[in-house]
Amino acid sequence: MTGARPDDRPGRLEVLPVRVPGEVSGPVAALLCAHADLRDGDVVVVSQKAVSKSEGRVVLLSDVSPSPLAEGIASEYGKDPRIVELALSESRRIVRMARGTLIMETRSGIICANAGVDESNAGEGRAVLLPEDPDASARRIAEQILEISGARVAVLVSDTFGRAFRVGQTDCAIGVHGIPPVLEYAGERDADGRELRVTAVALADEVCGAAEIVMGKSLGIPAAVVRGLRMRGGGGAGLLLRPNDEDLFCGPPPDGMAGRPGRH
Amino acid sequence: MTGARPDDRPGRLEVLPVRVPGEVSGPVAALLCAHADLRDGDVVVVSQKAVSKSEGRVVLLSDVSPSPLAEGIASEYGKDPRIVELALSESRRIVRMARGTLIMETRSGIICANAGVDESNAGEGRAVLLPEDPDASARRIAEQILEISGARVAVLVSDTFGRAFRVGQTDCAIGVHGIPPVLEYAGERDADGRELRVTAVALADEVCGAAEIVMGKSLGIPAAVVRGLRMRGGGGAGLLLRPNDEDLFCGPPPDGMAGRPGRH
Repeated sequence: MTGARPDDRPGRLEVLPVRVPGEVSGPVAALLCAHADLRDGDVVVVSQKAVSKSEGRVVLLSDVSPSPLAEGIASEYGKDPRIVELALSESRRIVRMARGTLIMETRSGIICANAGVDESNAGEGRAVLLPEDPDASARRIAEQILEISGARVAVLVSDTFGRAFRVGQTDCAIGVHGIPPVLEYAGERDADGRELRVTAVALADEVCGAAEIVMGKSLGIPAAVVRGLRMRGGGGAGLLLRPNDEDLFCGPPPDGMAGRPGRH
Repeated sequence: MTGARPDDRPGRLEVLPVRVPGEVSGPVAALLCAHADLRDGDVVVVSQKAVSKSEGRVVLLSDVSPSPLAEGIASEYGKDPRIVELALSESRRIVRMARGTLIMETRSGIICANAGVDESNAGEGRAVLLPEDPDASARRIAEQILEISGARVAVLVSDTFGRAFRVGQTDCAIGVHGIPPVLEYAGERDADGRELRVTAVALADEVCGAAEIVMGKSLGIPAAVVRGLRMRGGGGAGLLLRPNDEDLFCGPPPDGMAGRPGRH
């Protein structure tokens, strides 16, 4: 399924934080229904960390045995070899290694630092991994919300990623259920019949970014509700991942800045 | 001035489109005040195209004489040599050239396709350039809004850019006045005293992305109001531009995919 065609843009959006006291454990859907007044058509943006924790994607670092490769990379880049081992085991490719940063391509094709492996807010001696299948997580949360509250919502699983060229991270959708991840403008024309410069808008990423503004980085707000979007559609977060052979920045790096694991 | 420290995140945001019938001409601030009920603390996100048009940054293509370099690049990449000429004259570096796309670094350091030169919605035989100094544009619009309506607002000038690795464009701030462009988390710690994985959040870009959701790509909505942000601060859009020597993806490209103008 490809991205949706542009639809009517919403007349107005509201972005509301969902405050959840205490640590996230157990099914996220039940927590969200308990702490938010969800309505048909809402888009519920849930942090990756809350989803991962609720799915048990938490690893005790004392259980991790780093490979020689992980040890080597860790000592060269000043990292914890157990974190590097986890990042390698979650990845199919190293995109760049430099300045203490490992940019990896996860098995599902997401390009991000450390393959999303994260110690912060994970609990002492622990690391959180990305959900195994974030689209399935989003769909499951939507189904459970429907069951519990009767509200038919869209769900995005959101994570915070760095970017090429620009300072500052933004939230992106790693799991999508119920809205079009991408609005396709290819072939759309302006009033003079010229093709638009814009060819596709990353709607799901923009919605996650809007949600991040109210969620922040504390543990107390694992989700936000974006109300008023009116756009419904299908397609998973994979539609937001550019195939490597169509990407201008994803090829072998210049100046030996990094390399595939086997070449390093 | 560096980015601001994280502040209290807003309790709730509203994102409201500003509909303006007809073509944008003359001062943007007067148009916005006529068509929106602006309040103290609002963040007004204005499309780059509206700002550029109101500042006369529109070029008649028949007035452009392409250089031999522009002719060469245009014929190789299937582009209009006059557009390439304008893009070169707006740029200080070519970052990538491939697959019909020229990724340029503008004189103010923004990395984007065609240096922001755009024919779509420009009018027949015309192209729109980025504002000369988008931070100054943002500040001027804020000052004029204060003068006309008495409302003390922040202003972002927003443009739509592609990204490495991910499909779909998102809106980014090229001009910032009145909010911190970046929220700095470096040194912030989680409950267990671990440094956060997130080091800086590109607040102004997330706000522009939220505004894009209601603005869309038609001419009729040149701006949006984001209400409820509560974060005030200084610093221009340059804080969102990563210095080339700190960027992992900005170096000379692999495989001869592109090069600096002189080497091509």
